[in-house]
Amino acid sequence: MKISDIGEFGFIDAIKADTLYHKENVVVGIGDDGAVYTTTPGWQQVAVIDTMVQNSHFIVGQTATWHDVGFKAVASNLSDIAAMGAVPTHIVLSTALAPQMEVDDVVEMYRGIKDICRAYEVNILGGDTVMSKEGVVITVAAFGEIEAGKALLRSGAQAGDVIAVSHTIGDSAGGLDVLLAGQDGYEALKKAHQYPEPQISLGRLLVQHHCHSLNDISDGLASESNEIAKASGVELVIDRDKVPTSDGLKAWAASSGKDIWKFVFNGGEDYELVFTMAPADFQALQADYPAVTAIGTVRPGPGRVLLRHDGGEQVLPPTGWTHF
Amino acid sequence: MKISDIGEFGFIDAIKADTLYHKENVVVGIGDDGAVYTTTPGWQQVAVIDTMVQNSHFIVGQTATWHDVGFKAVASNLSDIAAMGAVPTHIVLSTALAPQMEVDDVVEMYRGIKDICRAYEVNILGGDTVMSKEGVVITVAAFGEIEAGKALLRSGAQAGDVIAVSHTIGDSAGGLDVLLAGQDGYEALKKAHQYPEPQISLGRLLVQHHCHSLNDISDGLASESNEIAKASGVELVIDRDKVPTSDGLKAWAASSGKDIWKFVFNGGEDYELVFTMAPADFQALQADYPAVTAIGTVRPGPGRVLLRHDGGEQVLPPTGWTHF
Repeated sequence: MKISDIGEFGFIDAIKADTLYHKENVVVGIGDDGAVYTTTPGWQQVAVIDTMVQNSHFIVGQTATWHDVGFKAVASNLSDIAAMGAVPTHIVLSTALAPQMEVDDVVEMYRGIKDICRAYEVNILGGDTVMSKEGVVITVAAFGEIEAGKALLRSGAQAGDVIAVSHTIGDSAGGLDVLLAGQDGYEALKKAHQYPEPQISLGRLLVQHHCHSLNDISDGLASESNEIAKASGVELVIDRDKVPTSDGLKAWAASSGKDIWKFVFNGGEDYELVFTMAPADFQALQADYPAVTAIGTVRPGPGRVLLRHDGGEQVLPPTGWTHF
Repeated sequence: MKISDIGEFGFIDAIKADTLYHKENVVVGIGDDGAVYTTTPGWQQVAVIDTMVQNSHFIVGQTATWHDVGFKAVASNLSDIAAMGAVPTHIVLSTALAPQMEVDDVVEMYRGIKDICRAYEVNILGGDTVMSKEGVVITVAAFGEIEAGKALLRSGAQAGDVIAVSHTIGDSAGGLDVLLAGQDGYEALKKAHQYPEPQISLGRLLVQHHCHSLNDISDGLASESNEIAKASGVELVIDRDKVPTSDGLKAWAASSGKDIWKFVFNGGEDYELVFTMAPADFQALQADYPAVTAIGTVRPGPGRVLLRHDGGEQVLPPTGWTHF
């Protein structure tokens, strides 16, 4: 059955179940002109928005299934919430669908949306659905909360800080490369690309441990670290070989003959966190959350990133790593 | 110059000025992973989202300019906020742009966005911009606030209520028809289509005057009145000839030979309000705000709409008016 056969109300009926995970905060959910919800006294609100376009951000049948399109559209937004140190609470979403799209595919996309919202206990408050003659466009706006005055910005990095990242970097770009090559195996890389995990709990720990600056890695480590350097007016010095990479990525780089550092610095959509904090605070964080790795230090200087490797230093531009 | 020439950061630089009209509520605006803002103690939050797709919702050069595309994308969201009786406070927005789009056109679209946000004192908190191979898709998520427990829903209509609408109905659909016909003149109709005015102040008065049910007219009066009837479980009886229409719409219907009631009941995007309230409350409202007209009454019955005209009654389906 096609979307054009069931119409907007049929579509809403098909997807409106199981959308609220914290009903106590929701006064009005799906079904009126707007959603109404309550906020927590003493907390500030965080709002983010992010769009994915079919055949630009995902190619169904090659790099994505409809289920992971829905999952990832929400994940990228929750990652932005995590990158402020906040707790996600609600989403609203808007989808532009092609009339010839199969209803089953739309339901599958919403299953992905609901799966991640359930995992992170985020309410789906409502949305809009329009028809597009072209491919699917999905926009999610997510809201979160953070204790007043505690939001973690890009601009707080200080000379003497440790620079650190969570887990391993470059896996999503590696997974995309595997998928585009139509290669079997490398399931961990593919999962990193299709089902990225927003680092909500780490973001909350970073608030508790007095983190100075924080970004999520949506556009590659080169771009994100440069944003911190520029916003903070400090120089970030990264030791290339300290950046943690997975065995899967090393294997794919070796087997494909590609430069692993391009995946690490230029790839995007890792949705891991890059942050800076005082060395003692970083040690305390590591005791609570071991899957973080120091990759460099912050020093006074122009707002730029230097990359140390093979005994030398080079400026790492936001556009990424090029082997010299 | 093309959008592909200036890149995302050039684009952000081009549009980020003049985005905050109530700075006191904004902790972090454009430029970090998310925006941070404060809410008002004792008030609840309202969230809405709406998408417009090029060549589905607007045809630049025929039904729209880039300026009014931006204006209207925000207006439709503020209208949803008005339809809850709330005060709009912030928006975040996401645009999918074609790489070959002229920078001047994008700036013009943002001028429209800023013009309406300035008029209604709504902060632009941030957004996302992605590239699309196809036409422009613009999604706005808007937030508002309302005194706790005061949100006006579709479901509150009561037998004995007056049904009323604001201003005149059908002008936007008439304006679209004029624009599609390439007809000169009829400026008021064209303005109704391109620069609709969200009825924020009337929504606030409806809260004060104990309105029972409220919808904005985005999909035509037939659809919106049926939503109230169905959500409230009552029968709405509308006197067709009491529905207020403008002189401009009457003139266009006469000159084009088209049925004026199709514009009124089936047309959309008026962004006027349709509401029900006790007769005494309606009289008090009219004293404060004369541009409202009673068009019928609510009675016990199935959740449907009856239309009285020419001495008879017919069921008005959500899909609209057809002459019998």
